[in-house]
Amino acid sequence: MSDDKILLSHGGGGVMMKKLIDELIVAKLGNPILAQLGDSAVLELGGRIAFTSDSFIVKPIFFRGGDIGSLAVCGTANDLAVQGAAPRHISLSLIIEEGFALSDLERVLDSVRAASERAGVSVVTGDTKVVERGAADGLFINTAGVGSIPEGRNLSVANVQLGDKIIISGYIGDHGIAVLSEREGLEFQTPVESDAAPVVEVTTAALETSSEIRCMRDPTRGGVSSAVNEMAEASGVGIRLFEEQIPVRESVRAACDMLGFDPLSVANEGKVVIVCGAADAEAVLAAVRKTELGRDASIAGEAVADHTGKVSMHTAAGGIRMVDVPYGEQLPRIC
Amino acid sequence: MSDDKILLSHGGGGVMMKKLIDELIVAKLGNPILAQLGDSAVLELGGRIAFTSDSFIVKPIFFRGGDIGSLAVCGTANDLAVQGAAPRHISLSLIIEEGFALSDLERVLDSVRAASERAGVSVVTGDTKVVERGAADGLFINTAGVGSIPEGRNLSVANVQLGDKIIISGYIGDHGIAVLSEREGLEFQTPVESDAAPVVEVTTAALETSSEIRCMRDPTRGGVSSAVNEMAEASGVGIRLFEEQIPVRESVRAACDMLGFDPLSVANEGKVVIVCGAADAEAVLAAVRKTELGRDASIAGEAVADHTGKVSMHTAAGGIRMVDVPYGEQLPRIC
Repeated sequence: MSDDKILLSHGGGGVMMKKLIDELIVAKLGNPILAQLGDSAVLELGGRIAFTSDSFIVKPIFFRGGDIGSLAVCGTANDLAVQGAAPRHISLSLIIEEGFALSDLERVLDSVRAASERAGVSVVTGDTKVVERGAADGLFINTAGVGSIPEGRNLSVANVQLGDKIIISGYIGDHGIAVLSEREGLEFQTPVESDAAPVVEVTTAALETSSEIRCMRDPTRGGVSSAVNEMAEASGVGIRLFEEQIPVRESVRAACDMLGFDPLSVANEGKVVIVCGAADAEAVLAAVRKTELGRDASIAGEAVADHTGKVSMHTAAGGIRMVDVPYGEQLPRIC
Repeated sequence: MSDDKILLSHGGGGVMMKKLIDELIVAKLGNPILAQLGDSAVLELGGRIAFTSDSFIVKPIFFRGGDIGSLAVCGTANDLAVQGAAPRHISLSLIIEEGFALSDLERVLDSVRAASERAGVSVVTGDTKVVERGAADGLFINTAGVGSIPEGRNLSVANVQLGDKIIISGYIGDHGIAVLSEREGLEFQTPVESDAAPVVEVTTAALETSSEIRCMRDPTRGGVSSAVNEMAEASGVGIRLFEEQIPVRESVRAACDMLGFDPLSVANEGKVVIVCGAADAEAVLAAVRKTELGRDASIAGEAVADHTGKVSMHTAAGGIRMVDVPYGEQLPRIC
């Protein structure tokens, strides 16, 4: 059906919708639970579960290093992983503009499948809606997810203690700059690729190494600065970052300089900020660095008594500056 | 903030977004889990869970008898309930068009809150995205939900057996006709109101009365005809409906006649189709009729050996006609 386009009738609850779901969506993403096509998926998940949901409106939907499909899977799987959960199952809800190319939908679903396999999640339920031309912009995706949390694991941004170390799992700002340059047609000497990836390998390595992991966050919209500000505020500590320890690619730094952005506030989709007790920090760093996604990790900050509830940074130039939460929109439709 | 409008910066991951979430969304819908604003909500749900997700794109977003907020809560809570689950927690993900009135958002959130209370669910996680003017149509909502299923309960559309009775919990077609008449400015002598409501009181009454409930469905897009066709096909039985036993309001029938719709294929948002063993059917009907939502319920059909995998109807005129799944789109953007 690759040459065809999405019609309103693909969302109407009748034969056309069933055909789209059976022949494309279930065919691409099928597993025994999804194939039942029940009103709800029935899951065996003992005890405590993590539950999250995100909508994805990224523009353009295809970009260097990923697309809206990989983003939707990684975004939700990562929200589960940073809660200390094993990501298990996700839903996939599509809002499609009439006239959207079925071949593009197939490409997105292939990407959903690949990202799901890497993240260790299965797509078990979903929904397909179609709106008339002009009522949406191509394709929006919502994914919700559930995962299981082992007994006794309680990560919270309110748990940070004085002296704790802040680990950043790799180069920051790649996703935001990759999407922006695709959208605006910007050319850089070294093209920037989105880092969209499931971080569960990183979070698992950290959690298996130390019982002193206080909290983790995936620094998406608002970037590292939003994530660490939230921790400082919730825990009532200051957080001090060290600029020279924060991994930023030269190409991303150059793009940010040109565009007036702070790399600390640019979105990431395959990174984790990990806070752990100081005694375990080197061991956690070593474990994270052994993972594919975490090989460029560094200890980039610590919890301090100065500037309680706020984030400051020891700059490369030797000064101290405050790192605020970005006020409004730096980069619209970045995820 | 009622006179203000949504800006792109309300979705940017910074201070403006935090303000919107804290002062409007959490203020309206708050509970201890949501207030943590973690990447995922952490839930205690033992054993088997039901998990579902739906996006809502209804146009217009306000209509007689409900709005996109009540619809989003009921749609997801009902998908859990018809699976035999107790609906427990939902997510609320908003895609908002820049310029959308904050007062309308407040009205929708009030409606989310009221519907959540009636359905017995709490909003525990969510997401807010804003797209530029023209990239969406006002407001789209996705809700995902989780609920717990008691041990040993296994409802499935594949469980229907010969002789089973089909109960419809009340007047059909109200939601579809209410939304359509609002959208098209149609005036009927007796205005039709959407039936959007949480059906858990009906499903609970049925399940508490009989251990022979085979399956339940909420007949939304595609209406009763899609729901029962799915059962007939999955179970390999024929389903025979009795037109005179199917509750249809005069106003809905008149509207359908005028517009060329079949009430059986029009969407409902507060009805359930229940299949149960014949011996228990009268008792289940009596229990359902004792609920507020189920007082107009009837036994409207049965599983038969004729037309295996298909649905037929004994018409009021005394003939037999086949009831097919609607082919494509009858009523776009109905939910």
